[in-house]
Formats: sequence, C-alpha cells, structure tokens
Amino acid sequence: MDVRGGGPGTRETDLLDPRNLVDRVHAVVLGGGSAFGLAAADGVMDGLLDDGIGWPMGEPGRVVPIVPAAILFDLGRGGTWGHRPRAEDGRAAYASASTDAVEQGCVGAGTGAKVGGFKGGIGSASVVLASGTTVAALVVVNAVGSAVDPTTGLPYAVGLGLGDELAHVSAPSADELAESHARAEAQPESAGRPGLATTIGVIATDATLTKAQCQKASGVGHDGLARALKPVHTLFDGDTLFTLATGDRPAPDPVEQTLLMEAGADCVARAVVHALLAATSVDRSAAGGVALRSWSDAFPSAIRG
Amino acid sequence: MDVRGGGPGTRETDLLDPRNLVDRVHAVVLGGGSAFGLAAADGVMDGLLDDGIGWPMGEPGRVVPIVPAAILFDLGRGGTWGHRPRAEDGRAAYASASTDAVEQGCVGAGTGAKVGGFKGGIGSASVVLASGTTVAALVVVNAVGSAVDPTTGLPYAVGLGLGDELAHVSAPSADELAESHARAEAQPESAGRPGLATTIGVIATDATLTKAQCQKASGVGHDGLARALKPVHTLFDGDTLFTLATGDRPAPDPVEQTLLMEAGADCVARAVVHALLAATSVDRSAAGGVALRSWSDAFPSAIRG
Repeated sequence: MDVRGGGPGTRETDLLDPRNLVDRVHAVVLGGGSAFGLAAADGVMDGLLDDGIGWPMGEPGRVVPIVPAAILFDLGRGGTWGHRPRAEDGRAAYASASTDAVEQGCVGAGTGAKVGGFKGGIGSASVVLASGTTVAALVVVNAVGSAVDPTTGLPYAVGLGLGDELAHVSAPSADELAESHARAEAQPESAGRPGLATTIGVIATDATLTKAQCQKASGVGHDGLARALKPVHTLFDGDTLFTLATGDRPAPDPVEQTLLMEAGADCVARAVVHALLAATSVDRSAAGGVALRSWSDAFPSAIRG
Repeated sequence: MDVRGGGPGTRETDLLDPRNLVDRVHAVVLGGGSAFGLAAADGVMDGLLDDGIGWPMGEPGRVVPIVPAAILFDLGRGGTWGHRPRAEDGRAAYASASTDAVEQGCVGAGTGAKVGGFKGGIGSASVVLASGTTVAALVVVNAVGSAVDPTTGLPYAVGLGLGDELAHVSAPSADELAESHARAEAQPESAGRPGLATTIGVIATDATLTKAQCQKASGVGHDGLARALKPVHTLFDGDTLFTLATGDRPAPDPVEQTLLMEAGADCVARAVVHALLAATSVDRSAAGGVALRSWSDAFPSAIRG
C-alpha cells in the first residue's frame, strides 16, 4: 500500500508495512462515502468470518479477516448528503463478489466519483507480460485534477493503450472542445471546492511478491496516476493504491520486477482512461446530488464505432 | 501516531501523516475485539455527526468526523470468542464520554487485556511540568511481554512513580514470588500463543504541537512502553500510540518539547504500572473465556494500605 494523496481515508493499512507480521489479506474494500464508508469493511469482515476465511487464531472457524480499505470523498454526489455505504453494503458486495469481468463506470465506489469536470468511475486494465505473468489494475477515479488534456480534449493517458485498445478514441471536434471549455468556465466556484476527491485502486498480479515488493509496486503505480491525472496527489486527494500478489507464479528477478511494476503503472493509467470512457452522465440534482456529464457525452465526435 | 508493534489494527491513521491535510481529530477510539473492533469507530462517527462535530464540508451539519482508531487482540478473553465491540458500543462509549477521571482496570478496551501472565487493563497517569504544561497518557496494556520484573516481582517501571505515587508498592514476599513462578511454569503452552496481544494508548497535552511534533511524541512515548514492558513491540504486539495536543497553551521550544516528550514517555510507563495495579482477577472460563489473576491478587504482600 502506498498513500500519495494528502487526504486519505484508510483502514488496516499499518499492518501492511513490510516490517509487520501479517503477510496475507483476505479482501480489499474500495468505497465511496468518505470516512463513513470505512464501515463497509465491517460487513466484508463479517462475511469472511462466516465463511471461515481469515487469519487463523488457533481453532477452526476462529479467524480474523484482514481487510484493508480505502475510501474516496464523494458525499452528496450520490444523492442526498447522507447516502454512503454501510456495513450491510459491504456484506452485499462480499456476497456478490465473483471472478467475472469487473463492471466499470458509475458503479460501486464509482457511483459518486468525479474527475475534473467530468463524471468519474471505475476502470480496469490488464496485461500479460512476455514472462507469462499477468498484471492488472482496478482504479476508482475521483480526482481534483483532470484526466483530460485541455488542449486536445483527449485523455492524458490515451497513448498508453495496448494494440487497438484505445484506437476508437480520437480528439473531439473543435466545437465540442470549445463548448466543454465554456461550460467549465461557467461552473460555480463551489464545484471545485476541495475535500471531495481521492482516487483509489488495486494493482494485482499472479507473480509471487514480498510485502515490500508490493509496497514498492504501489508506489510505482502512482506514477501511472501521474501520467493519467493532472494535478494528482493534491492535499485534497487521498490517492491510495494497494498491490496484491496471488503467488501463483514465480518471484521475479530485479529486472522482471521492474517490468512488472512499470506494467502495473501502465495498467493504472489505462484503467483511468477506461474509467473516464465507461462513466455515464448522471443528474442527481433533484435528489440533492449533482449533475455531471460524462466525457463520452461531452465529446461524441471523439468515439468511433 | 506511531506504530512500533508488528501486528497493528488501525483505522484513519494515514491521514495523521504530517504531510497530509487534516490537522484535527474529533475522537480517538481504543478498542478490544481485534480487527473486528474497528467497527466501534463507526458508532463514534455517527454520534459526532449527529452532534455536528467533524471536518467541515461546506454546509452546516455536513461534517466528516475524523476518528482514528486502534484495536488490541483479545478475542475469546472477554467471554465467548464472538464477544467484541460493535458500532453500537462505540456509539454508547461516545454518549458516555465525560471529563471525569478515567476509569482504570478491566473496563472498555481493557476488558479482555492480558499482560504476561497477569490480567491487564487500562491505566492512566499525568504530570504538570514546571512550565505549567500538562502531559497525560492513557494506555491499554495487553502485551506478549511482561510488566513485571521476574527477579523481584515488582513492576518494571515502579521507579518512575512521582512523589509517593507508587510508594505503597513494594516487592512481594519470596513465597508469593515462588508461587507465581511455579504457576507460570504450569501454564499450558497455548496460553502464550502469539496473535493475542497489542498495547495501545493516547498521550495528550494542552500545549500547541504540530502534527509532526505529535508524531515524534508518539515515537518517544514508545520508549515509555520499553521501560515498562519486556519484551515489547514484538511481531505479535501491534503497539500503537497516538498523541493529541489541545493547543490551549503555547508551542514549546525545542528544549521544552524534549521535556514534554520525555514526560509523555514517563506517563506512558506509569500508566502501564497503574493498569497492572488496577486490574482485577477475572474468571470467564465458564463462558468459554479465560481465567487471569491480577498482579495485586498474586502478590498481596506487595501492596501497603
């Protein structure tokens, strides 16, 4: 785990220090709801406990699930100010966990996410390295900064797409770009008020990594955020990344580890782009929330096919 | 905040990094129940929210309470294995918070605490420095190590008592000491199995300290634990200390800050002694818990008056 933002909201992160004992986590919770959302981890812990999954405490069924968590700041954007994940929502998320492809966009922790002036959300990306090792990232993009180059309207990290991954994305028309700038300038100043951001995510690999290597990979992962978001890691973002290693494949040598970490950073950056593309416009102003346009709706000319 | 133990269980600690934005906390939760006990902070947050206390988010009543928390590992010692603080217990603790003298011994987070072979619990100590600044510590003593010198039977830190604070404590009789050693040797090996420890606490002062100074004071506070517990900071202890400064009095110069931090460490050590003295023997074996004798019951000859 590595925190690079100035306003993090976290739980069970001190035990991830490589000096400390626990070397296995049983779930990672990414949630909205600001610090209140940390309650979702209670429900995930209860679900794991019922399934007997956790750090063994000596007797069968007696386990303590290790569930690090990070939240993002989105209060009020999901509807009324009081809307936030609670323990039962964590429990429900645990119950519906699967190995299916991750749903992207305005779901889960991405529900109230915002990035710059656009709707944010969840994005995911992965790669299989030449060594056969898989690296992936899931990121919930909710940043003070923007994921979009103001000069071109393109996502900052669009150039990191693999093969034809992002070939359908081009620069929007000059008219759309001008309209978007005009709209941003007309926003009330309060729309940019601090305290309502934070991008959080998880990098995962099937390689075998030590805790210290996971920590290092999380730090390099933040470089992916730096390439995809600007500014990033502000005092009003609590940007936090976790790295998980399943240990199914061999431990990398230092060169392989470097490639793996850079792949993780690229997955993070690509995941930010996918979050931006998958997000859909929402209007929750009637419920006391906010209206946010998606990048895709702002720039229909930028998407082919 | 400073974590020196190898098995911490914490919440909202990353925001305490001096580099990060938030410079004020609204409560600190110390709980039992291992990682499950972190749920107590949910209830404290809810109570603070209802009272409008928290980090302001722009509009009246819209606050995010900043509630760092640390837990200790005591599952099964408070009765059945499932006994642990939940959100509603945190809420109740918040409702009953007062400025009265802190109850010491086997209450709150001290309910299931154990230190070496004796019952552990909550202890507190304070001092007013020559400058007029007050420093205090509250510690929940629950350690793999012992608070008692095996040669003499005396608490390690008994010599740090101020004036006649600990004058009523003397070395136990040779008979009592021998009986205690024999009893410890007869304990089944499982009684010492790791994973069931962690000493947590708070140092507080009315001086004005920066976040970085609070972090430094927490680190020096751990020296107080080192003087009062042996071994300490093991891989099976998640020893964590917080430092709070109310800011009612001036900021110290470097010499004053050094005196303040050392006073904090001494308060921590004295608090450990008070926890040991205030603890009472418990027998929860009928409910599936454990029986633990207090130091006072083991060594009646050591207490005068």
